[in-house]
Amino acid sequence: MNIPRTSFPRIVIIGGGFAGVALAKKLSKQEVQVVLMDKHNYHTFQPLLYQVSTGGLEPDSIAYPIRKILKDFPNFYFRLASVEEIDTKKNKVRTNIGDLKFDYLVVASGSKTNFFGNTEIEKHSMAMKTIPQSLNLRSLILENFEDALLTSDLNERNALMNFVIVGGGPTGVELAGALAEIKKGILPKDYPDLDTRSAQIHIVQSGDCILKGMSAKASQKAEDFLEKLGVHVWKNVRVTNYDGKMVTTDSDLTFETSTVVWAAGVKGATIKGLDAEDFITRGNRIMVNEFNQVKGFEHIFAIGDIACMATDEHPYGFPMMAQPAIQQGDQLGDNLLKIIEEKPLKPFVYKDKGAMATIGRNKAVVDLKNWKFQGVFAWYVWMFVHLFFLIGFRNRMVVFVNWVYNYVRFDREARLIIRPFKRN
Amino acid sequence: MNIPRTSFPRIVIIGGGFAGVALAKKLSKQEVQVVLMDKHNYHTFQPLLYQVSTGGLEPDSIAYPIRKILKDFPNFYFRLASVEEIDTKKNKVRTNIGDLKFDYLVVASGSKTNFFGNTEIEKHSMAMKTIPQSLNLRSLILENFEDALLTSDLNERNALMNFVIVGGGPTGVELAGALAEIKKGILPKDYPDLDTRSAQIHIVQSGDCILKGMSAKASQKAEDFLEKLGVHVWKNVRVTNYDGKMVTTDSDLTFETSTVVWAAGVKGATIKGLDAEDFITRGNRIMVNEFNQVKGFEHIFAIGDIACMATDEHPYGFPMMAQPAIQQGDQLGDNLLKIIEEKPLKPFVYKDKGAMATIGRNKAVVDLKNWKFQGVFAWYVWMFVHLFFLIGFRNRMVVFVNWVYNYVRFDREARLIIRPFKRN
Repeated sequence: MNIPRTSFPRIVIIGGGFAGVALAKKLSKQEVQVVLMDKHNYHTFQPLLYQVSTGGLEPDSIAYPIRKILKDFPNFYFRLASVEEIDTKKNKVRTNIGDLKFDYLVVASGSKTNFFGNTEIEKHSMAMKTIPQSLNLRSLILENFEDALLTSDLNERNALMNFVIVGGGPTGVELAGALAEIKKGILPKDYPDLDTRSAQIHIVQSGDCILKGMSAKASQKAEDFLEKLGVHVWKNVRVTNYDGKMVTTDSDLTFETSTVVWAAGVKGATIKGLDAEDFITRGNRIMVNEFNQVKGFEHIFAIGDIACMATDEHPYGFPMMAQPAIQQGDQLGDNLLKIIEEKPLKPFVYKDKGAMATIGRNKAVVDLKNWKFQGVFAWYVWMFVHLFFLIGFRNRMVVFVNWVYNYVRFDREARLIIRPFKRN
Repeated sequence: MNIPRTSFPRIVIIGGGFAGVALAKKLSKQEVQVVLMDKHNYHTFQPLLYQVSTGGLEPDSIAYPIRKILKDFPNFYFRLASVEEIDTKKNKVRTNIGDLKFDYLVVASGSKTNFFGNTEIEKHSMAMKTIPQSLNLRSLILENFEDALLTSDLNERNALMNFVIVGGGPTGVELAGALAEIKKGILPKDYPDLDTRSAQIHIVQSGDCILKGMSAKASQKAEDFLEKLGVHVWKNVRVTNYDGKMVTTDSDLTFETSTVVWAAGVKGATIKGLDAEDFITRGNRIMVNEFNQVKGFEHIFAIGDIACMATDEHPYGFPMMAQPAIQQGDQLGDNLLKIIEEKPLKPFVYKDKGAMATIGRNKAVVDLKNWKFQGVFAWYVWMFVHLFFLIGFRNRMVVFVNWVYNYVRFDREARLIIRPFKRN
């Protein structure tokens, strides 16, 4: 990879997610050379992917060109690349576009969907971790309704209109709520010649509550909201298989459906060279110390979802969400400069700013440290926070316009099958 | 296709473009059953496709769900279908989702890119008639610059940064202008480690002027604007081949390039059953009389790009643009009702509302019947007219936000490689 060597130390960052971008910004005006690599040329605002899948937002409004984030930074290089291996002995990364030496390496490769080894589920169900995946789901949902019009077989029609979401975390809950609103507000108008009342939305959750990471109050209220919207919430049920037609579970419960969304878990997106047992812990995450250093190295770090920093309060690492990623990226920026200046490092302390999830129109739950609230106000707070954390003024404006329009008109206009999924 | 027969006559419309949608709207509150079929579930605002290709607009803001256009109309059916054959004897259409009988048939299938039989050009060059095609071009342009960074071969790098647009009509001119602005305003910031000044944009035009359908003044001014933006305009040069690396022409001129956009012509998107020589004329269009009736039929019609209505002023049919399509759809709506009520038909008269093209920031040309003007004011008129004709309030708002942002910030933020084209 032809990146010139300068007198500045070279920091290679793998991944332009929340963690990688926060770190890059912190290093912007420092005497270091930074090379950021990502498989995509854009940063994805993952918390809003479910709105892309359900036609509420266009994909381009939750993506932001990484080169634009870095454009005013001197000594910055972006490369569109897949990292294939990390050579910790020779201090270089091997990518699909060539090798690159590093002085410091930061792995911020994030997480991917965890199918827990079930290849049949992986083959037949939909994931929602990237924009292309979310667009595939959008196409599939719409294609299903178009197909439901064509069949006279009642079972087949119902299977096309049944949606099974596996996993009751924020992704599953938010997607289920959005689908329920589409069922109520859009389907009867778009498909007057189809009995869309028989469409069903199911959440299947292996644990005994939804939104497990949040307060009992939030969890209960979210469940109430979902039930009010007509979503079926199944708790203490574990999905055992899905063959493309039938979902089986560890109970008597089965679902005939054409659409399973797998939101039951994520795992670290490990990279060869740092994927040996020595480095990896629960959930495929790389163990790091309080400075985000990978075991055995002083110059190799991991931050964000891929990193597992075990603390007393979080023995299995911090939740795989935006906040810990941003905070770790931020802090590591400071620490890298301290290392270069040979100053002592500052350990990472996670500031839990709370959690929130939206279920639908005027329906959200928010857990702050000292204040937990639900309903209309929580919904406004949810929107404000998401607008605030979106990168880019244009994105904020476009998302705002869409949200106002969708709210006033009970609508979601991006119900477009731009690239068909089934007919592909 | 399970669409119930009612006592109303059934009108089948093939195609949800400008013509088909205008017709459908006209029939909305009448005592007819209307079935509209399209390969996509959305209407595409084709005049702005070049802005999608160049990252100025998100695709979803120039698309509009067809079901939503029809949602308040009783007796309306939409089917996502490809029509495979028209059986004029049995009065039915054969589609990929089954057959359907019609009482009246309206072919509004539009046009597609015309490669004039050159399969090598067709294989290697990019077209820009649909949203997926425009997104492919967007990805390709961006991927080329990412790849240009990686090569040390100067010829290869230049080929990656050279863009050859074949055809000097509105599409070619508007795309060239947008690329020139990207070269000037965005590339130097996004690719500080690449000498983007050597990027070249060429328009190759077989005739002796660009914007052939417009006034000599508009054509000349557009050429001046393009030259000011650094676009190379080649007139009286005909492209003879492109093998993926080299463009050859009927002169000594050749271009080494990775990207050829073919905007040199369109032809009618004919359908089996109405594609015999009896029906077809120049440009693969279906000959129609002044009521848009296809020769030999009283109940089969063609409107828009696919229809060729020869008049004294337009011996080869009206230009293949939005205006004639909208006007024909509109008028045919009235005439269909007249046929059903057994009243005499009204012949179609084309009201030429003029033509316009934008070249770049503050640079457009407008030809009205009695007034031809160019420059800043023309640019405002161009924007206003395009906003006005866009379907949907949300689309207008989002496009407006983008245009204001792009204007103020000299930017185009949708430079996203959502689905890679080359690496696919």
